[in-house]
Amino acid sequence: MRALVLAGKEQFDLVDLQHTSPAENEVALRVAATAICRTDAKMWKSGHRDLVLPRIPGHEICGYIEEDPEKLYTIWPGSACGSCSACRNGRENLCPEMQIIGFHRDGGFAEILNVPESSLLKVPKGLKPSVATLAEPLACAIHGIKQSRTTGNDRVLVYGAGTLGILISLAAIDRGASVSLTDPNTAKLAQSAVFRARYGIKAEARITSGSFDVVFNAASPADTLACGIHRLAPGGRFCLFSGLGGTTEHPELIFHELHYRELELIGSYGCTMQDMRDALVLLNRYRNDIGFLVERELQIEEVPTMIGSILEGKRFRHVIVMHDSKTLTSSPFQRTRTQQK
Amino acid sequence: MRALVLAGKEQFDLVDLQHTSPAENEVALRVAATAICRTDAKMWKSGHRDLVLPRIPGHEICGYIEEDPEKLYTIWPGSACGSCSACRNGRENLCPEMQIIGFHRDGGFAEILNVPESSLLKVPKGLKPSVATLAEPLACAIHGIKQSRTTGNDRVLVYGAGTLGILISLAAIDRGASVSLTDPNTAKLAQSAVFRARYGIKAEARITSGSFDVVFNAASPADTLACGIHRLAPGGRFCLFSGLGGTTEHPELIFHELHYRELELIGSYGCTMQDMRDALVLLNRYRNDIGFLVERELQIEEVPTMIGSILEGKRFRHVIVMHDSKTLTSSPFQRTRTQQK
Repeated sequence: MRALVLAGKEQFDLVDLQHTSPAENEVALRVAATAICRTDAKMWKSGHRDLVLPRIPGHEICGYIEEDPEKLYTIWPGSACGSCSACRNGRENLCPEMQIIGFHRDGGFAEILNVPESSLLKVPKGLKPSVATLAEPLACAIHGIKQSRTTGNDRVLVYGAGTLGILISLAAIDRGASVSLTDPNTAKLAQSAVFRARYGIKAEARITSGSFDVVFNAASPADTLACGIHRLAPGGRFCLFSGLGGTTEHPELIFHELHYRELELIGSYGCTMQDMRDALVLLNRYRNDIGFLVERELQIEEVPTMIGSILEGKRFRHVIVMHDSKTLTSSPFQRTRTQQK
Repeated sequence: MRALVLAGKEQFDLVDLQHTSPAENEVALRVAATAICRTDAKMWKSGHRDLVLPRIPGHEICGYIEEDPEKLYTIWPGSACGSCSACRNGRENLCPEMQIIGFHRDGGFAEILNVPESSLLKVPKGLKPSVATLAEPLACAIHGIKQSRTTGNDRVLVYGAGTLGILISLAAIDRGASVSLTDPNTAKLAQSAVFRARYGIKAEARITSGSFDVVFNAASPADTLACGIHRLAPGGRFCLFSGLGGTTEHPELIFHELHYRELELIGSYGCTMQDMRDALVLLNRYRNDIGFLVERELQIEEVPTMIGSILEGKRFRHVIVMHDSKTLTSSPFQRTRTQQK
């Protein structure tokens, strides 16, 4: 099978591997489509807390089992212990034993991968594989909505009009909240104009007024924190959805505001199995509106030349689509690398 | 009536004033006891966000109405608009029109003060006036417990073994949580030994191990934030109960932890009328255990010489007790200052 291995910083190797047979309780999933998340691009550039190299990345996956190619699955990319306090409380994304597909174990930048059978989730009929890869980022967006306790009464502001910004907006709209979106890149904002108009989502390159109950950062610039905190109504919540690049200029002011105005700063990272189920319901509900988030379908061999522009964060999803899955074998895992780039 | 007026930074004037008659919907409350909160000492030293000078401070008050000196009242020190979004949602402590007794309007460092009739809360029979002044700080502690959604399953860590640290511990214990208390001042810790032993509250001068679901800072050193965040279990909550002095050394690490471990940083400031009602129930329930929090009863004229040591934050409550309230009049407000210090 062909696979793209991240061997080191900025080094992708397109290789031909023999697929290992799945372990007990696992299945071999033939990849129909795997999206390239900006996190994939970031870890290609500079690694990631949860990444162990060499690694086949890819955690936004849609595939099928050889015996029934008509039935599509997406997967919850985590693998949790099931018995720790986090797992028992339905917060398996915080399990200290967590193994994430595409980070700790090989992912979907390949024709086949082995996944725990319990991670499989059926894709609603008729959803395209590339669109079904949105289930995982949408689940993360839904997770942020739950973490921040967003309700239909809330005025929500989202920093960043990229894929995640749009998906957070969608999840908030679905709860009945009113949503504003901000992104300094007006060309990016323009790309979601039809979607925004349909759901009454306001958008501005720079938010200079208004008061919000919940703010999300689906963008990493550190100043989104200070700006967002400033825009919160008393008692409001800032969902730290994206990591922050660098430090902030006035952290003491942030803590002052948090204390006196009873604001909340709430972390959100990843998603749970339930979030994935909820995401598939929403993907199906809004299937006619969100196709624009798949900006381009590409072949696996195009990834090394595209990854730099994906890193810039100015594009919607680029999704690897697989057209032939011819090398499924049950022989031991064995890598035959063909350096590419 | 005698009153202590904060005229400027580090300037208390003991004055003899004629009391103004109460406005409509207000009553004249004769002060039985007013505690000196560390915030009072801080604003004597360096002002406060909500302070307008000159001002008679004092917001932890127990008093009575002249007609019925047997019936004691404490007061919710706020005065909110009642119609804004915060007020309608039971978060009147966040009302933008808030007027706080002792900050925006004159408080209890006086023999008499006028208070909104709606702010009065009956003190349970048999509670000493000086102990009843603990209702307001206990209400703030209860408010922090509610803000942080502390439950009986939580392991709670409190930074600071002063009055507020003890009251937060009490409110957490009452919910069934297990509580640890930390304070670098071992002499301070020793003062609560009997109370802690009775309720199984652990205490250490420095916390070097353990994992907690909720952390409170009832102490202003900035490093309590970084240390407390570090001690939180995944998904844990840090209640920013006290303002932070200065900035922190590694704010970027704090935000990183918040994001990846889904921690929450939750502001808490002041209390609501309901928190005051809850506090009176708890004061009554634990009346035999908390007397030690009133370290000293003093006369109003002693305050200027004591305020410096109160500012150091090494003592439990110092409470002004009034023994004679001989100058109640209904003549217009008129100040006759007698500088003291």
